[in-house]
Amino acid sequence: MDVRIFTRDDVQHLLKMPRAIELMRDAFAALSSGRIESPIRTTLTNDHGTVLYKPTWSAAQNLFCAKVVSVFPGNAHKDLPVTPGIIVLNNGETGMPVALMEAGFLTSLRTGAATGLATDLLAKPDASTAALFGTGGQAGHQLEAMLCVRDLKRVYVFSRHNENAVRFCREMAAHNSNCELIPATNRNVLTECDIITTATTSAKPVFSDREIPTVVHINAIGSLGPNRSEIPAETILRATVVVDHREAGLREAGELLPLMNDGRLPTDFAPAELGELVLNKNYKVERPVTVFKSAGNAVQDLACAAEVLKLAKDAGRGQTVKF
Amino acid sequence: MDVRIFTRDDVQHLLKMPRAIELMRDAFAALSSGRIESPIRTTLTNDHGTVLYKPTWSAAQNLFCAKVVSVFPGNAHKDLPVTPGIIVLNNGETGMPVALMEAGFLTSLRTGAATGLATDLLAKPDASTAALFGTGGQAGHQLEAMLCVRDLKRVYVFSRHNENAVRFCREMAAHNSNCELIPATNRNVLTECDIITTATTSAKPVFSDREIPTVVHINAIGSLGPNRSEIPAETILRATVVVDHREAGLREAGELLPLMNDGRLPTDFAPAELGELVLNKNYKVERPVTVFKSAGNAVQDLACAAEVLKLAKDAGRGQTVKF
Repeated sequence: MDVRIFTRDDVQHLLKMPRAIELMRDAFAALSSGRIESPIRTTLTNDHGTVLYKPTWSAAQNLFCAKVVSVFPGNAHKDLPVTPGIIVLNNGETGMPVALMEAGFLTSLRTGAATGLATDLLAKPDASTAALFGTGGQAGHQLEAMLCVRDLKRVYVFSRHNENAVRFCREMAAHNSNCELIPATNRNVLTECDIITTATTSAKPVFSDREIPTVVHINAIGSLGPNRSEIPAETILRATVVVDHREAGLREAGELLPLMNDGRLPTDFAPAELGELVLNKNYKVERPVTVFKSAGNAVQDLACAAEVLKLAKDAGRGQTVKF
Repeated sequence: MDVRIFTRDDVQHLLKMPRAIELMRDAFAALSSGRIESPIRTTLTNDHGTVLYKPTWSAAQNLFCAKVVSVFPGNAHKDLPVTPGIIVLNNGETGMPVALMEAGFLTSLRTGAATGLATDLLAKPDASTAALFGTGGQAGHQLEAMLCVRDLKRVYVFSRHNENAVRFCREMAAHNSNCELIPATNRNVLTECDIITTATTSAKPVFSDREIPTVVHINAIGSLGPNRSEIPAETILRATVVVDHREAGLREAGELLPLMNDGRLPTDFAPAELGELVLNKNYKVERPVTVFKSAGNAVQDLACAAEVLKLAKDAGRGQTVKF
C-alpha cells in the first residue's frame, strides 16, 4: 500500500493564501448547501489535553478526509507545537489511504483564509485600517488574509505583552512593505479601524463595546468554548453575526451561547452562515457592526488538503511511503 | 515533527499470535472494567463503501489510537484490499503523533486473537477437533488462534467453493504439521467438532442447529450487521452467548438483534462480555453450547498497536518520516 506523505514544508510551498480564500468560498458554500458530509467530531480528553477526530466526505473532491489534531496547552513549555496534527485522505472510489499530511500549517492557513473570506464579504470595500489582537501561531495568517482582500494602509497589533507585538510587526514588515504595522497598547486607535480581528486565547473580551467605531467588521477566531468570549456581549447584541457552521457555532461559541441561555438573544437565534452569504449574492447585512465568529470546520481542512494533493501532483512534491 | 512508520511487514514481523492473545486478555478486561475510553465510531458512506473512524484512549498505555479503516467490497475485483486501513497513534502526554501503522494485518491478527481468547475461555480443555467456515483474508489467523490455545488434531475447512478450501488447507499445512487440515463439504463431520469458527461473509446461517454436537464452542466472527447471521437462531437460543462489547453486540449483531426484536430473546438480554469472563475466574458457563459473537472493538487495535510500538523500539524496526 503506497501512501503519499506531505510535510509542513510541502503544504507551505504549494498552497498560498489567495487560493486558500477561493477554496473557502466553495467549501463554505458546499457546507451550507449540504453538499459535504461533516459529522460531529469525536474528542478524547485526558489530564494533559484533548485529541479531536474530524472526519468529512466530499463527493465533489471524491475524497474522505480526517484530521487528527491534538490541543495540548502544556506543549508551549516543552518547545512542542500546541496543536500538532495529521490529516489522512482516503480515495472515494476505493477507500484506499492516498495521503498523509502535516496539519498544523494547513489549519493555520485555512483559519486565516476563513477570515479572509468573511472580511471580503462583510468589511467596507475601501477599508484601510485594521486591528489585530494576538501575535501567536495563527496571527501571521490572519494578517495575511486581511491584506489579501483589502488594501490596508495600517494595521495596529495588540498583544498582552507589548514586546510580542513589536517582534511580530518587525517580522511581518519584511513581507508587507505596502502596509504599516504598528505595535499598539492604547485602544483609542480602534476608532480608526474598519476591521478588527481577534486571535487570542483570552477568555474575556479584549476590547469594550464603547471603544469600537460605529461601522466595523470583526473577525473573532480565537478562544473557543461556552465560557470564553473575546468579544463584548454588547457588541454581539448590536451586530449582524455570521458563523461558519450554525450548529457548531451555537453549541460551542462563548460569544453566543451564554446570551441565548440568559435570554439576551432569542432561543431561536439563527445567525447566517458564511456559505449562505456566498450562495446568496443579494444577502443584505442589516447592521453597521458585523461579527464573524469562527468555530472552524472540517470542510476547510478537506478543501485545502484536496488542493495540496492536486497541486503536489503537478509540482512533483511529496514522497511515497510503502505501508 | 518526526513520526515512526510501520509497514505491514513490520507488524507481521513483530507481533505474533500467542502474544496477541495475551494482549486481548488485558484489553477486554480493561474494556469491561471501563478502564479504556472507546467512544462510538464515526462512519462515512458513499456509493462505493464506508470509511470507519475508531478512536480510543488508554491511560495504561498512555496512547491515543485511531484506526481509519475502509470497507470497500468492490476492491476485491480491483486487486486491492477490501479493508485497507491506517492506525494513528498519539502520545498521551503531548498529543504528538508518534506512529502510523498499516492496519490490515493488525486487524486480522487481533480478530484472530479474540477468537483465541474466547476459545481458551470457553472450549473444552481437551478439544481435539474443530471446523472453520470461510477461507478468506481472516481465515488464516482464525485457524492459528485456535491452534494456539488447543491441541487440535484435526480441523475441517469449509468454503462456498471447495477449491478454496483445498488451496487453504494446502497453504496452511506448511505451517501446521501437527494438525490435519481437511477440506470438507459434508457437514456431517460437525458432530465430531469441539469448536466451530465461522469467518464468512454469509448473511445466512452456514450450518443448521441439528448438525452440531451437544457440547460445542462456536466463534462467530464474520458477517456483521442487523440483517446478517452466520449462526442459526435455534443455536443462539440454547447457547450461552458471550460478546466482546455488550452495547456494540446488541446494536450490531444480526445473531442477536432480530431475536430481541421478535421477543425470542428478552428485551433485557445481557450476554456476558469476554472481559467479564477474564475478570471473574469463577464465571460459570451454564449451557453446553457457547457462542462468542465478535463485533470487533477499537481496544483490540490499541493494545496491538501499542505492543508493536514497544517491540519495534527494541528491535529497531520502522522508519522515521519527518512531517
